[in-house]
Amino acid sequence: MEDRKRPVILVTNDDGYRAKGIQALIEAVQPFGHVVVVAPSQPQSGMSHAITVNMPLRMELIEEKENLMFYVVSGTPVDCVKLANNQLFREMKPDLLVSGINHGANSSSSVVYSGTMAATIEGCLYHIPSIGFSLLDFSRYPDFSSSILYIRMIVKNALEKGIEKDTCLNVNIPKLPFDEIKGIRICRQNKGVWREEFDKRRDPNDREYYWLTGEFYNLEPDADDTDEWALHHKYISIVPVQVDLTAYKSIEQLKTWKFS
Amino acid sequence: MEDRKRPVILVTNDDGYRAKGIQALIEAVQPFGHVVVVAPSQPQSGMSHAITVNMPLRMELIEEKENLMFYVVSGTPVDCVKLANNQLFREMKPDLLVSGINHGANSSSSVVYSGTMAATIEGCLYHIPSIGFSLLDFSRYPDFSSSILYIRMIVKNALEKGIEKDTCLNVNIPKLPFDEIKGIRICRQNKGVWREEFDKRRDPNDREYYWLTGEFYNLEPDADDTDEWALHHKYISIVPVQVDLTAYKSIEQLKTWKFS
Repeated sequence: MEDRKRPVILVTNDDGYRAKGIQALIEAVQPFGHVVVVAPSQPQSGMSHAITVNMPLRMELIEEKENLMFYVVSGTPVDCVKLANNQLFREMKPDLLVSGINHGANSSSSVVYSGTMAATIEGCLYHIPSIGFSLLDFSRYPDFSSSILYIRMIVKNALEKGIEKDTCLNVNIPKLPFDEIKGIRICRQNKGVWREEFDKRRDPNDREYYWLTGEFYNLEPDADDTDEWALHHKYISIVPVQVDLTAYKSIEQLKTWKFS
Repeated sequence: MEDRKRPVILVTNDDGYRAKGIQALIEAVQPFGHVVVVAPSQPQSGMSHAITVNMPLRMELIEEKENLMFYVVSGTPVDCVKLANNQLFREMKPDLLVSGINHGANSSSSVVYSGTMAATIEGCLYHIPSIGFSLLDFSRYPDFSSSILYIRMIVKNALEKGIEKDTCLNVNIPKLPFDEIKGIRICRQNKGVWREEFDKRRDPNDREYYWLTGEFYNLEPDADDTDEWALHHKYISIVPVQVDLTAYKSIEQLKTWKFS
């Protein structure tokens, strides 16, 4: 990391260090600079912004090449970013953080459950330009070839033009070959929820247990400026995400409350 | 739950069902209606919006009185809200969700790590008026007596006036006797970060491990409209929190990016 003329890029994910998605993301960003990977040792899907407060963490360097350092951490995606910042980047911050490529969508309200986006938001809180990438393919071995090409276009812009302070990017990529993707759209977060069904079963001791299942329900299917709309119309979606959760427009209404 | 003239209030937390804070919250809201508690079986601090996707969940009814049902779930705070919505409130939603009282602050950027606030945001996503409460006292046996009185003032307003759709409330309470609290202020989320230090140790086999520690660093100590300011000046803070994370003001800048 001596040659600071080349950007230093921190890579993490939530599917764990052995996932095909993180290998594809490393391949996508290696042409831009020095790559430092700090990824969870185990899959961490659905871990959101969880941090490990009641257990110690381990960090192991598993690969060291000229332009690639690869660390594995026994924690969550956010633990990875915290340990990287504190132990590997004490004197200088990375120029960019990229997270993913997630196996599956993180569009609409899924952003709040996503470990991929939590790592991205964590980078943003510490003023590192940060981007999360997700491919709409849940399988273990998706085809990431078109994702890699589009990620390079997005990373080039981020390094050249910067990302506004206190915001980061949530990028979702449709499961399509390169030339069937119509382009990239800047979007807002779609309003939608997961409609859960819990699959209720009985264990061998006849005690009940529940498996979480569910499907996404779009609350505004006709709006054409959302990430869901873009993805359904074969575009890549980029949603700028902010870390300030204040609902400013509610402040005046709340000031009418009487406390006595 | 037949008598729908009285509100039905769903109570959860992230410190687990045995925490003193949830007992205080039940006491605070019982005068307002029927209370249904669905709380984690184990402490879940720092779990944020995590959901359990790779393991089954258990839910057990541990107490049933005329105005109180108490369930315990083997998962995260968000799992509790999802299971409650899906298994207990299929036909009708609760009139209010309250989460806490957390043992410790959830002001400023701590909102993104908090299980207390994740359960609150989960309620909001499903259009249940939702409030998270936290007391600035990390100890196991805090004095919640003044919290209970102020929570009743806030819950009364929420039930009478409602909370705007797609927003929920993050309430933090200073550790002070009732008559030393100066009042309640509507605030925005303070800009601040946790400055982590990892305490690096060696295990009996001489292998390194890390414990997460850190202290909060206020990036705007002079602003007087933030939750941190209110709390330091002996006020209770209420921050309205939104589930739409879109950074709308960044959309125009991003539309200048060139993709080729």
